[in-house]
Amino acid sequence: VLKLFFAPHTCALASHIALIDVGAEFETVRIDFRAEEQRKSDQGILTETPAILVFIAQSYPGAGLAPIAEPFAFARVQAFNNFICSTLHVAHAHRMRGSRWADDPAAIEAMQRKVPQSVGDAYALIERHWFDGPWVTGRDYTVCDPYLFTLAQWMEGDGVDPARFPKIADHRRRMADRSGVKQALAEELGPA
Amino acid sequence: VLKLFFAPHTCALASHIALIDVGAEFETVRIDFRAEEQRKSDQGILTETPAILVFIAQSYPGAGLAPIAEPFAFARVQAFNNFICSTLHVAHAHRMRGSRWADDPAAIEAMQRKVPQSVGDAYALIERHWFDGPWVTGRDYTVCDPYLFTLAQWMEGDGVDPARFPKIADHRRRMADRSGVKQALAEELGPA
Repeated sequence: VLKLFFAPHTCALASHIALIDVGAEFETVRIDFRAEEQRKSDQGILTETPAILVFIAQSYPGAGLAPIAEPFAFARVQAFNNFICSTLHVAHAHRMRGSRWADDPAAIEAMQRKVPQSVGDAYALIERHWFDGPWVTGRDYTVCDPYLFTLAQWMEGDGVDPARFPKIADHRRRMADRSGVKQALAEELGPA
Repeated sequence: VLKLFFAPHTCALASHIALIDVGAEFETVRIDFRAEEQRKSDQGILTETPAILVFIAQSYPGAGLAPIAEPFAFARVQAFNNFICSTLHVAHAHRMRGSRWADDPAAIEAMQRKVPQSVGDAYALIERHWFDGPWVTGRDYTVCDPYLFTLAQWMEGDGVDPARFPKIADHRRRMADRSGVKQALAEELGPA
């Protein structure tokens, strides 16, 4: 049975929602992110959210969470998820994980000051360029949707006003209303 | 016909090599990265190297550059490429593109100072954890290989000694000997 290793308030939420969306049988294992338990190696562990999301979609083709048989449409899904991971999430990470990229405390503070701008710029590009509506890639709900929702949870914490991005804010409201999203959040934020 | 928009010395090289590997018909269009021509919108443009690489592999299934029909093996390819993009390339980008994440010149210099460590740490993880040999994911050459090769071109510039990573250094030598790699480099670094 699939096991999802997660810590609350991380991008693991996206995979958690997708597992519920496809009706997968799975267990969740809460890990202590600070203790770096996530680095323990094991046979058959998958890492990296965009890879996990496509694995879930591909393992449950009936749920239709990614158009894997259509190379260009699939590449569009992949490109969006990659943008979330390597631009939006990376910009966000400069708020709490600046020590990955500099040692000087003043530099780490300078990174934190820029987060509202760099994260805001990434959302502006999503709002203007990526978001087709009603779901990220258009008519069909895909693995892009839980991933965007997961990051968008952190928008206010990053100092970005959701009112600047009406399509993303509306998407966040509609996602929050889905029973699968409510279930994933309850499982992650409930008692350990 | 496929058009590859590229600037020399960027991660576009990975897609360029893969296009030659699969025997694709394609044209290259050299763009001025500084002028941000790459942001010009057009119908049907794909961005994000991991998405482009899988699109190439999927469009030329006979070349066998990604095990798309095997979900777990495919996820392993995707996870590696995602690690390259969101950890290794992001660490590297702090050398020349620090202004994305801070405005203060001293902070940008502090980021540059940490690049040998953060990039070296990413290569250490590849050498120890990801690299199966003889190719990245084991017996078969995949789109992971041109992507690793492309980033590994920048290792010395990032202040990282390739001698620390015998498997990656050997991979770089074997890749540099491939005719497709020589052709892609000649096309990119030749006269405009």
